[in-house]
Amino acid sequence: MNNYKLTIQYDGGRYKGWQRLGNGENTIQAKIEHVVSEMAGVPIEIIGSGRTDAGVHALAQIANFKMEKEMTEQAVQTYLNKYLPQDIVVTNVEIVADRYHARFHTTEKMYLYKIWNEAYTNPFIRKYSTHIEEPLDLEKMKMAASFFIGEHDFTAFSNAKSNKKTKVREIYSFEITKENGLIEVRISGNGFLYNMVRKIVGTLIEVGLGRIEAEDIPAIIEKKERNQTGRMAEAAGLFLV
Amino acid sequence: MNNYKLTIQYDGGRYKGWQRLGNGENTIQAKIEHVVSEMAGVPIEIIGSGRTDAGVHALAQIANFKMEKEMTEQAVQTYLNKYLPQDIVVTNVEIVADRYHARFHTTEKMYLYKIWNEAYTNPFIRKYSTHIEEPLDLEKMKMAASFFIGEHDFTAFSNAKSNKKTKVREIYSFEITKENGLIEVRISGNGFLYNMVRKIVGTLIEVGLGRIEAEDIPAIIEKKERNQTGRMAEAAGLFLV
Repeated sequence: MNNYKLTIQYDGGRYKGWQRLGNGENTIQAKIEHVVSEMAGVPIEIIGSGRTDAGVHALAQIANFKMEKEMTEQAVQTYLNKYLPQDIVVTNVEIVADRYHARFHTTEKMYLYKIWNEAYTNPFIRKYSTHIEEPLDLEKMKMAASFFIGEHDFTAFSNAKSNKKTKVREIYSFEITKENGLIEVRISGNGFLYNMVRKIVGTLIEVGLGRIEAEDIPAIIEKKERNQTGRMAEAAGLFLV
Repeated sequence: MNNYKLTIQYDGGRYKGWQRLGNGENTIQAKIEHVVSEMAGVPIEIIGSGRTDAGVHALAQIANFKMEKEMTEQAVQTYLNKYLPQDIVVTNVEIVADRYHARFHTTEKMYLYKIWNEAYTNPFIRKYSTHIEEPLDLEKMKMAASFFIGEHDFTAFSNAKSNKKTKVREIYSFEITKENGLIEVRISGNGFLYNMVRKIVGTLIEVGLGRIEAEDIPAIIEKKERNQTGRMAEAAGLFLV
């Protein structure tokens, strides 16, 4: 029995997120499990390193599954890419140690968020970014971002439905760059609560628009009240890296 | 009466090309003329600098139209972007001299062609590139490209239906770059025949695959026979710059 580790890239635009919720659900996990099970000849469950919400993309989602059937890494990759929809691509397959588990062994996650910050839409990236027409103040956004780094209780940036025991997470890095109207936000940490990245980016956008002061971020985190934060940024701009 | 010059960006994926062919045609020119005419209150014809085929994109198509109604450049731009479909965006509006004519006054055209040259599809650019799985020899393609520069009779790279009097065109520059699996081909000249760019890029791909020798390009041009050239590259990878 081999343990196969997959690196998967997908355009999440037409899916209800990563996680399979039932039978026949239009999720990325369900699509991949269907093809893997056909390949294996038996039902196979795959384990993802993390979930992505409906509409969120991935540049490199990590997953693994175990299979009795002996197949080379190359043969698995070729089979999956032949039968998966064109918006889901397996970019790497590796046979790993039996004890490897994609969720438990992923200790760092990075997300990328794209903001198109020009007066008019960009037709080529409109499905992969959020569009903010008013000019954003990048310096203020960078200052606001710096306050998120470190270990904090992120209750203020969580979804009310979240039932996680602890809302403490550590942010390792938070970078904001801009090139030709496109702002890219990269945030990495040991884990993220449901909707947390989109809520943080939404707050950053409010800071960039001058509606929230960067200096108020520490107090907003401290208060742990959900209604203190700004908008939740659109799913289309978010990529699991 | 003002003469308005427009710079237009579009994702040509769902259109039958630039040029209006009749009433109710799903073309970019027809879409824009419809909105401009509504704005003007009278039927208005717009003149494009050049046509793009079905499925071809534009980063900056130039067009102009004349209108009796007095409107500022900003008001025209705002109106058009409000009522045009999201995959057509007016990036600039300029009031120009009355004699300006987008087709006659455009003396250089540049096209960009994108080739994704990795074993597997890239889900994010699959609608804006052609996918070649086998590795392409970039050095051979660059050598082949160099033979196109200058003034030549491009009959070998024209469409059989073309009824242009002369098939002589001048290529000013032809550059090929590669970054992370993405090959970008940029070709500029004083004009291009119908399908010419896609036929030239298709031939370049054949050279990159080793099926046509770069050194044979001068003879292929010289022969003026259409069946000497390679494939015609897909429309999705082509952008009018």
